[in-house]
Amino acid sequence: MDVTSRRSRKKQQTRGVIGEAAIRLFLTRGFDAVTVADIAREADVAVQTVFNHFPTKEDLFFQERESYVTLPGQAVRNRREGDSVAQALARGYLRLLEDYDDASLLTRSIEYQRTLDASPTLRNRELELRREREDLLAAALADEDPPLSDGLRPTLLAAFASAVDRVLDTEVRRRLLAGEPINHITVALEPLTRELFDTAENACRQTRSEP
Amino acid sequence: MDVTSRRSRKKQQTRGVIGEAAIRLFLTRGFDAVTVADIAREADVAVQTVFNHFPTKEDLFFQERESYVTLPGQAVRNRREGDSVAQALARGYLRLLEDYDDASLLTRSIEYQRTLDASPTLRNRELELRREREDLLAAALADEDPPLSDGLRPTLLAAFASAVDRVLDTEVRRRLLAGEPINHITVALEPLTRELFDTAENACRQTRSEP
Repeated sequence: MDVTSRRSRKKQQTRGVIGEAAIRLFLTRGFDAVTVADIAREADVAVQTVFNHFPTKEDLFFQERESYVTLPGQAVRNRREGDSVAQALARGYLRLLEDYDDASLLTRSIEYQRTLDASPTLRNRELELRREREDLLAAALADEDPPLSDGLRPTLLAAFASAVDRVLDTEVRRRLLAGEPINHITVALEPLTRELFDTAENACRQTRSEP
Repeated sequence: MDVTSRRSRKKQQTRGVIGEAAIRLFLTRGFDAVTVADIAREADVAVQTVFNHFPTKEDLFFQERESYVTLPGQAVRNRREGDSVAQALARGYLRLLEDYDDASLLTRSIEYQRTLDASPTLRNRELELRREREDLLAAALADEDPPLSDGLRPTLLAAFASAVDRVLDTEVRRRLLAGEPINHITVALEPLTRELFDTAENACRQTRSEP
């Protein structure tokens, strides 16, 4: 193994240690009560090292931000030949659910949600991330070839897909809090997930006129 | 005119003066830079009087909050016999647009939006108001008799209706910023408004299975 890859491995490892320390502190004390200095101390690194890996404190909470934000747009752009937009979106959503299919992640996700709900800063950032996500999806839909249709259709479908995401998220959370195991939830919600994204796509394809 | 009604008229008048003063200051200096004491001084009343009329500073920005939040749910509950849910929602949206049909409100609404966008506190509050609005609509849809359908349908339709609201709001803002007169926008968007709410309702009625 050469020096470069060892360095890069080391860097990833440090990032992981910092990220873990941050989440541990946030979930215990709440987002606003934790400083970047606290996180540096907990991870046993310099404050500057934390900032090298995570430019803002919010980035330390939303570590998977990039993949979350780009997922639906990428799922549409890179879908298998013959797959509909709805199939691509459903597959993307179910892939995210499967990533939760792990006991520690499950417990954590409830605590994570509670921490997020308690912080206005985080709720704002989450809203921005959802908007960014929807905009990227709308851009992917506008690039469809043959075109999805003219005018507002890509924006409308992206907004409907976000609405489906939210309805599904709420249903997943409700079942989690009722104690249903996550792998059971994933299986139980698969038909609904496919159906709701189909509904969203069909609704936007059936409409007639344009502004 | 008796004493009670004169008192009540006086109270409404004071509320109006405070509300006007607050909006004037917010739009000039930004929400976060203005204190309740500044508003009291501008309106020439005591600080306690401001709080008697508006319990929080956010309430001074979102003065029409209650009618905004309850509108879609009320539009569905109190619709004319024979009207569909979609027709009620479209009518409600268009009524709001018509309320903007006034030159000073128009200029103000652009400045208002800018002030809102610049303040994380206000963006958060707006998000909460939109959620509250969607929840009240979902509750109204769940009470439909004969029932809209079982399971998640009322939630889904409320989420789709919110998505339609947002798409329309964005289109209205885009046209306003392009200099299109508001009365022209209201007329131009009427068919689209009706069509999109129809789309949302039809999508939720056509779906087959339930979770």
